[in-house]
Amino acid sequence: MGEIGAYYTDAPGGGINFNTVKISGEGGNVLLKPLLTGICGTDRGIVNGSLSFAYNPPGYSFLVLGHESLCEVVESDSPQFRKGDRVVPLVRRPGECPNCLIGRPDNCSDGNKHEAGITGLHGFMRGEFRDFDHNLVRVQDNSLGDIGVLTEPTKNVVKAFEVFERVSSRFVYNNSLSTLEGKKALIIGTGSEAFLYSLLSRDYGFETYILNRHDIEQNKKDMCAAFDVNFVNSAADRDLINGSPIDLLIDTSGDPGTIFHYVRKMNYNGIAILFGTNERAPVATIGGDDIDYVVERNITLAGSVDAARIHYLKALDCLSGWKRKYGKALDGMITGYYTPGDMDLFMHKPAGEIKSVIRW
Amino acid sequence: MGEIGAYYTDAPGGGINFNTVKISGEGGNVLLKPLLTGICGTDRGIVNGSLSFAYNPPGYSFLVLGHESLCEVVESDSPQFRKGDRVVPLVRRPGECPNCLIGRPDNCSDGNKHEAGITGLHGFMRGEFRDFDHNLVRVQDNSLGDIGVLTEPTKNVVKAFEVFERVSSRFVYNNSLSTLEGKKALIIGTGSEAFLYSLLSRDYGFETYILNRHDIEQNKKDMCAAFDVNFVNSAADRDLINGSPIDLLIDTSGDPGTIFHYVRKMNYNGIAILFGTNERAPVATIGGDDIDYVVERNITLAGSVDAARIHYLKALDCLSGWKRKYGKALDGMITGYYTPGDMDLFMHKPAGEIKSVIRW
Amino acid sequence: MGEIGAYYTDAPGGGINFNTVKISGEGGNVLLKPLLTGICGTDRGIVNGSLSFAYNPPGYSFLVLGHESLCEVVESDSPQFRKGDRVVPLVRRPGECPNCLIGRPDNCSDGNKHEAGITGLHGFMRGEFRDFDHNLVRVQDNSLGDIGVLTEPTKNVVKAFEVFERVSSRFVYNNSLSTLEGKKALIIGTGSEAFLYSLLSRDYGFETYILNRHDIEQNKKDMCAAFDVNFVNSAADRDLINGSPIDLLIDTSGDPGTIFHYVRKMNYNGIAILFGTNERAPVATIGGDDIDYVVERNITLAGSVDAARIHYLKALDCLSGWKRKYGKALDGMITGYYTPGDMDLFMHKPAGEIKSVIRW
Amino acid sequence: MGEIGAYYTDAPGGGINFNTVKISGEGGNVLLKPLLTGICGTDRGIVNGSLSFAYNPPGYSFLVLGHESLCEVVESDSPQFRKGDRVVPLVRRPGECPNCLIGRPDNCSDGNKHEAGITGLHGFMRGEFRDFDHNLVRVQDNSLGDIGVLTEPTKNVVKAFEVFERVSSRFVYNNSLSTLEGKKALIIGTGSEAFLYSLLSRDYGFETYILNRHDIEQNKKDMCAAFDVNFVNSAADRDLINGSPIDLLIDTSGDPGTIFHYVRKMNYNGIAILFGTNERAPVATIGGDDIDYVVERNITLAGSVDAARIHYLKALDCLSGWKRKYGKALDGMITGYYTPGDMDLFMHKPAGEIKSVIRW
Repeated sequence: MGEIGAYYTDAPGGGINFNTVKISGEGGNVLLKPLLTGICGTDRGIVNGSLSFAYNPPGYSFLVLGHESLCEVVESDSPQFRKGDRVVPLVRRPGECPNCLIGRPDNCSDGNKHEAGITGLHGFMRGEFRDFDHNLVRVQDNSLGDIGVLTEPTKNVVKAFEVFERVSSRFVYNNSLSTLEGKKALIIGTGSEAFLYSLLSRDYGFETYILNRHDIEQNKKDMCAAFDVNFVNSAADRDLINGSPIDLLIDTSGDPGTIFHYVRKMNYNGIAILFGTNERAPVATIGGDDIDYVVERNITLAGSVDAARIHYLKALDCLSGWKRKYGKALDGMITGYYTPGDMDLFMHKPAGEIKSVIRW
Repeated sequence: MGEIGAYYTDAPGGGINFNTVKISGEGGNVLLKPLLTGICGTDRGIVNGSLSFAYNPPGYSFLVLGHESLCEVVESDSPQFRKGDRVVPLVRRPGECPNCLIGRPDNCSDGNKHEAGITGLHGFMRGEFRDFDHNLVRVQDNSLGDIGVLTEPTKNVVKAFEVFERVSSRFVYNNSLSTLEGKKALIIGTGSEAFLYSLLSRDYGFETYILNRHDIEQNKKDMCAAFDVNFVNSAADRDLINGSPIDLLIDTSGDPGTIFHYVRKMNYNGIAILFGTNERAPVATIGGDDIDYVVERNITLAGSVDAARIHYLKALDCLSGWKRKYGKALDGMITGYYTPGDMDLFMHKPAGEIKSVIRW
Repeated sequence: MGEIGAYYTDAPGGGINFNTVKISGEGGNVLLKPLLTGICGTDRGIVNGSLSFAYNPPGYSFLVLGHESLCEVVESDSPQFRKGDRVVPLVRRPGECPNCLIGRPDNCSDGNKHEAGITGLHGFMRGEFRDFDHNLVRVQDNSLGDIGVLTEPTKNVVKAFEVFERVSSRFVYNNSLSTLEGKKALIIGTGSEAFLYSLLSRDYGFETYILNRHDIEQNKKDMCAAFDVNFVNSAADRDLINGSPIDLLIDTSGDPGTIFHYVRKMNYNGIAILFGTNERAPVATIGGDDIDYVVERNITLAGSVDAARIHYLKALDCLSGWKRKYGKALDGMITGYYTPGDMDLFMHKPAGEIKSVIRW
Repeated sequence: MGEIGAYYTDAPGGGINFNTVKISGEGGNVLLKPLLTGICGTDRGIVNGSLSFAYNPPGYSFLVLGHESLCEVVESDSPQFRKGDRVVPLVRRPGECPNCLIGRPDNCSDGNKHEAGITGLHGFMRGEFRDFDHNLVRVQDNSLGDIGVLTEPTKNVVKAFEVFERVSSRFVYNNSLSTLEGKKALIIGTGSEAFLYSLLSRDYGFETYILNRHDIEQNKKDMCAAFDVNFVNSAADRDLINGSPIDLLIDTSGDPGTIFHYVRKMNYNGIAILFGTNERAPVATIGGDDIDYVVERNITLAGSVDAARIHYLKALDCLSGWKRKYGKALDGMITGYYTPGDMDLFMHKPAGEIKSVIRW
């Protein structure tokens, strides 16, 4: 490979560049070119320096960005792939801990994993790159179209619900008819991850709410209606969801004040999935009564990060199912198409953004 | 039953009385008299009003205290018990939620359970009382002696480790040899529950630390030595346990500042059991970086309250095993014997107290 | 309700009748009329006496048949249903064991449950009947059409895969990439349950085989092709699936000889779900080497019967997903429509039958 | 190492030799000498050729026997061990499957593990040998004495109960009080493994039966009495345990006829652990009614072989607890001491044998 166009940063906080870079020595039996790459809060956080954990690959003074992508196989030495196949590359690459050794680097026990475009590995926002077949999942459902680029953010949601299932084995979580009928899920946030969480929450059968502290744009309201999800403006109506307690709380904001405000509205045996991160969120105060609330109700708060190959596969199944069920409403998740070099996208979030993607 | 001597309070915060009371209409096919009753922070909290959740039984303007006890059967209409049998009565009595219906009122889904001596049921600190055989567990190991009074506090520990086991099924928690060798547990607090947690933590094979913000008395230091547990004075040596991160954090303090200080020293996949409650603990501030720490490491914080009949049975097995293994050192858990009417015990904690008991 | 037309038998082995019957005293706040009822091996077994466990409701000398149905609400006193709603009634009704009390009569601990149309409760093959709202699940997806009648047989498949998931927690079942890629499932039988198992097996990602000892009709071959499932004629090619061992074996035949023949072709950590029953199957011999094979490979054989309300809900989700994915191929599961009174259907299985249904 | 005395065989079925052998190239940072080695049915089976799976290490025409041992450290280059430490070496050594990689070669997914003294690795019945520290567990409880030699057979029992716990998560296995009170365990066989299973079964709280088809010697009857275990002579009283069904069936015989006879006496949700192997057991017939019985009651049959390091550690804890609880009765598990060269022991089982050991 020669020089290729790439988004890169001097991570973290090094701003954003788009130029040709030279990357040497990357292995892989498949040559890939991105069709679409999505951008998310992590990309913007690396660019603006609010995510302290990002770092450059060894020997490089920069980090190629990009962990959400839908790619096309350009050339393959692997029997598993052929030129023209659509694939999604895995973000996290294993170390040697017990979890990594069984294909679960998302649960890495010692932190010695790496993430493409984030921690020590170049990402996918570049003209082309090589990778190994075992790091790629094929998009078999052609009807998915551009929505395949949501595989990466969706895989986080699938893993988080796995965590929910494991944690909920500590008691009888379901009702006395064995179902989740009558159970309520609240998702904090109204970004792309929040909408993806709301979709899986509906599949599970939760009465589902998504929440923000301000009103949302019409496109998001339409999406809520299509997905049978309720929007709550916490500023306008602090008590809207107070009628019955929350059985499943999912946070995509990383904001401790909001999290603990709603922890205090959880039900007995409630489970909170902490997914969002925001190192610049304002501090919040919690008291003995907050701890008491969690203890007396057997509440669980579970951090959940990233996901494994199995969750990518299930994410593709989810997306196929949602595409068939919701059709154009799901396509509405992609709110803007951009071109390589459109660097402003990394600095400013477009109005009404759910997912902005760059077409390569 | 006529009038009997009892400790009671006008819960919560009604101070403490010892006098004869008349309780009518309690059912039960076994008549019991307490041999020993233990007192704990919950009793003192009810008396001084720091536990807002306590309430009187319907139709009563007072609450008989006492949930930790070792009793003797005075009279039995049940084929399962004979006069002279030693038994421990269960504290929590079920409602009609799915967890209560399978004998797990400790995991009550709707809060409609009751607790003897705490929430809506009279407790065991009285001359005699009736109960049903299915609410009693027999102390079969005569060699346990007075230590049988620790069954109730120990059952909480057994349940908490069940929670730990269920929650830890979300990943490979053990090391690559399948064991807990090299894993570290930190228990916040140095009271009776903390020591009981430390004993089970050692049985599991954790390198075990208990922690307080001040030095501990010699009897507690001796106990640490006997149980192969390390004491950490967090005030004197804030960094003593910093060498390697904490895999299992157990809090018996209810203090949010201490909890989150040590959450930040947890390992990847760390599990924190929140057990202690203290509504009067000082507020603490947590920030986005705290949430980020929990998310990025897949950390779980799990409230755990009370326990079920199965945990009383396992607690008795634990105590028998510990008695055989530690002998007199375990007896040292009971640091003081008191007599009925000794009301000062509810207002002031004796120096060096691990467990104070009242002999009836 | 007055007299209504019904299929009934003097169970077990009492042949089949279709005539008006009078059923008194049945409760229920919803009046239902079947649109379609499916028939299966259990119905035929009751009629011909090969299922010894069927029995009449108390006070009746006959049993109304029918446990697979798609019904319409005629009249509702429940706020949950309105006239015209399509619903599927649950087959199994709980006793008072711990599993029944949490809505899992499928896992009844003591056998004191009942099954409509099978054990002590009248079934759904009659002009109309009453039932309670908590025994009904609504078919919300109108596009399902007649396929809704497959909810009942599909719910068995959903429960069996739940058993598979629980049992497989005894080891790392997935491959070292965390997925089921490369894992093989063999389903014994080619009836409706076998095809439904094959569909969920494909959803999980197993390379999937269904097997019979004779060739299958063209409609079934086409269905295999549509579902990406491989058919194996065990008589013609005893070794076809021998290339790599079986990771998941599902039996719908109840035939011990066939089961143990394929148990011996299972992989390490293989899981066999035993679902089919056939009391008239020929006896088979097993030896010490068969037991040895199971022991040395940590193989699990798990009986799985019936399912709970949650599995009916998930079955409806499965059917909706399959309908969207496979379209007309799924409709092909219904191979024949019959009319009430067509009693020959209970005595003789039509050629090429997957699912025969009666339109009411 | 020079030549050392060893028991060996030309496995399988090569009879038994005791002579000096030369083993070259074995690695290990600890030099060990056995104090005691136990013999079991596997050793005898290798010697008499009834276990077809045994094979010699590569490059050898013989196999040194012995997998049950209690050893002393002669020399250590490991910081974890010192001269004089008592240790038990692990039997099974991992391959590279996902289970092996996380320290669970007992659950090996592909069969590429090895077992000392059985499959491809020399065993411990020799004057001295080297091993690596991570393959050794220390016997920390000096009071265990010779009973430490039971660690290896006990670790199988601990793993089997882990399987029981995982499998039983498929339903509510416990009673409506959350306990195992009133549950019955039947263990087929009266050898050393059967007695060890009975001890753990009692610890769990099962009413426990062990069974054989003939009467047992007085020493075994005394042991049953000491352990609170009931003996059943199936020949004399085929119906002794028929009063209530079996909730947990454990087989140590490998005999299919006996296994399925008692499977038919199992309760709803019963779990059978298949542990014993006997390739020469007589064949048995099973019918459709046997399969039906398993299906309709959600019965699980789970093969369980070997165990991992964690089970060795827990086995040592079990043995320490049992030693403290049962004292001399536990010592009675060793029914005979033999000397190296006493080859008849491998050909004939001494009368009343529970565990025969060779003192080195």
